[in-house]
Amino acid sequence: MTSLQTVDSYREEIFASLTPLAPQEIPLAEADGAVLASDVIAAWPLPGFDNSAMDGYAVIAADVASASTEHPVTLPVEAEAPAGDTTSRTLSPGRVIKIMTGALLPAGAEAVVPVEWTDGGSERVTITRPAGQGHAIRRAGDDARPGDLLLAAGTRLGPAQIGVLAAAGHGAIVARRRPRVTVISTGNELAEPGTPLVPGLIWNSNSYMLASAARQAGCDVTRHTVVRDDPAAVLAAIELAAATVDLLVTSGGVSMGGEHDAVKAALSILGSVGFRKIAMQPGMPQGFGLLGSPPRTPIFTLPGNPVSAMVSFRIFVEPAVRVLQGLQVPPVSTGSGLLTDPVRSPAGRRSFLRGIYDRQAATVAPLTGQNSHQIASLARANVLIMVPEPDTELPAGTEVDLVDLP
Amino acid sequence: MTSLQTVDSYREEIFASLTPLAPQEIPLAEADGAVLASDVIAAWPLPGFDNSAMDGYAVIAADVASASTEHPVTLPVEAEAPAGDTTSRTLSPGRVIKIMTGALLPAGAEAVVPVEWTDGGSERVTITRPAGQGHAIRRAGDDARPGDLLLAAGTRLGPAQIGVLAAAGHGAIVARRRPRVTVISTGNELAEPGTPLVPGLIWNSNSYMLASAARQAGCDVTRHTVVRDDPAAVLAAIELAAATVDLLVTSGGVSMGGEHDAVKAALSILGSVGFRKIAMQPGMPQGFGLLGSPPRTPIFTLPGNPVSAMVSFRIFVEPAVRVLQGLQVPPVSTGSGLLTDPVRSPAGRRSFLRGIYDRQAATVAPLTGQNSHQIASLARANVLIMVPEPDTELPAGTEVDLVDLP
Repeated sequence: MTSLQTVDSYREEIFASLTPLAPQEIPLAEADGAVLASDVIAAWPLPGFDNSAMDGYAVIAADVASASTEHPVTLPVEAEAPAGDTTSRTLSPGRVIKIMTGALLPAGAEAVVPVEWTDGGSERVTITRPAGQGHAIRRAGDDARPGDLLLAAGTRLGPAQIGVLAAAGHGAIVARRRPRVTVISTGNELAEPGTPLVPGLIWNSNSYMLASAARQAGCDVTRHTVVRDDPAAVLAAIELAAATVDLLVTSGGVSMGGEHDAVKAALSILGSVGFRKIAMQPGMPQGFGLLGSPPRTPIFTLPGNPVSAMVSFRIFVEPAVRVLQGLQVPPVSTGSGLLTDPVRSPAGRRSFLRGIYDRQAATVAPLTGQNSHQIASLARANVLIMVPEPDTELPAGTEVDLVDLP
Repeated sequence: MTSLQTVDSYREEIFASLTPLAPQEIPLAEADGAVLASDVIAAWPLPGFDNSAMDGYAVIAADVASASTEHPVTLPVEAEAPAGDTTSRTLSPGRVIKIMTGALLPAGAEAVVPVEWTDGGSERVTITRPAGQGHAIRRAGDDARPGDLLLAAGTRLGPAQIGVLAAAGHGAIVARRRPRVTVISTGNELAEPGTPLVPGLIWNSNSYMLASAARQAGCDVTRHTVVRDDPAAVLAAIELAAATVDLLVTSGGVSMGGEHDAVKAALSILGSVGFRKIAMQPGMPQGFGLLGSPPRTPIFTLPGNPVSAMVSFRIFVEPAVRVLQGLQVPPVSTGSGLLTDPVRSPAGRRSFLRGIYDRQAATVAPLTGQNSHQIASLARANVLIMVPEPDTELPAGTEVDLVDLP
């Protein structure tokens, strides 16, 4: 048997060959999951102007300094400043301006008396508590000043980040978009779910599963309908997709047999995809390469067994998505737990076994049904148990590294 | 001051008033994040037929029992069974059938000799190792048998679950869909990000932020362009949305001042929305109700300050989305950590302070800028620090409950 490449060496090699996507302008409403390519600096103060933190009355502090329940102060209301009003007003001594939360503070106002401390009057208002300098006032720039770092390069945009970009006036942002991915499943044996089967055929599950996994990894996904095991048809589908997306993922057509491997046959015509045997189980037969002219489109050819495909996606493709967005590759392992039962693994290969992690107990129970076609146990698993290459069996109670499953 | 309703009491009340969505048939390609309303039971065996686990040769075990490198066995190849071939074949004694991974096993075959143990011949094949009964054969039903539970009611569909549904032949599935949500922001003071501002106006950030948060919570989201503070316009937008979506979320227009609160004014016409003061900070002014005729559409009216809106979304709306999908409400707290610095909180209110949780150290650092309009610190936070109602200050080193932020 030829020697196998290790999981770690293969990961390093493929991630190093990827080029992050070019940053582009993305409308804010479509920016979920995009990654900033450079720092975002405040151009204006946040808030942009002094404004009221409450509904109440803008006052000069000295005018209400003596106010109490026993000796309330009554003052004329000279105007009203609702939120959104852009009129600039000046407060006269001995008077108040009724003001709403968020409204522009009149020039000269020193505090806002909350409506709860007043009789709420419109012509004249009676105030029963003093408000000190700056009370209930939000100062321009008290959230961010011009020049402040709002978001650092490498930030993945979620709700709060999109909120601060909007608040700072960005209708669009320069960032690395969610990668566009096409998932292609191949195989003469595939029938669409929902259609009748005869023995010899199986329902196409990989393209649905991998498309869902790619969406969970933050991609915009196109799922390609089944392509027959015909190298010309496979090649046409791959070339079309390579010209329009950022990443291609195929499954099937790369096993060891040779003559029926349509994906291998198609890609050997292109010549830029390498097929490897990786020291792992499941997932030994892997292919990776770059297609087309620069910027070249990476392609992963994953094995056709559903569990092999899913493990390969999690270990190779999902981190590659991060690299395309300019992010660091996280470690394979996302945690650890104690085995509830012994596990076995072939010598010289890293095994990824399906397990159920119990967060409370910090234990992990290996599932039965660990063959690479057994998808039912995959759907029950919440982690993969990683067994290092040298180990052939680990007893119950061993602390093992885990990889979370989406 | 009127007494305030506690966070826990308000949560219980609103979640109890929600009715889960009616289960409906959802095409598998659109089923990400849908929740099963009933168990999914295998109708057919998985796999559906005995098939080969490897590329190789289907044999009768006795015919290759003596095979070794020194004394190989050479047998005629009587046929070839590629994957996807539905021809039913019978293997004759003293012969082999070349077979690909996943192909239908010929009747009479007892084992598959992997191609690696042979010379790979097409007319005749020379075999150098024996293969015992059942070697490299996947038996029908070894993943699931008819009647087996594949997925339990209440399962949220992710990649592996969608994979097993496809593998079991479901082109569509009866489930509770991702809730459809409309997010509406209101306020005369709002301008669209990317347009110029004058003092008195602010850029609309809540609708972008809440739409992103709703997508992260697993919803299909429509974001409504800014509605002016006009009760008739707000009411029209709300009634239109209520007729077409599963949940409405507004922000702004519910403060304490009264006359300029367009959302309150609009909804008071409908009469089915209650406005409350909740013992929390930020997020005191909350509204919730049910609109239209059955099935009635829930509406949350969140406060307009961005941090208040986000905290309210996380504490009230996100769990409500789970209830609409028939799921249990998880506890508010998602973990705990040790304070690196002291925090303060008003008596009688539960505070949700922005913090940065350090997983390695299991510590949480409260951020500066905790006012409810200060969105910049929200974008840096990864958790909310929860300070219980009775506590007014907690020293550094206190273990506090945390709420993770999306």
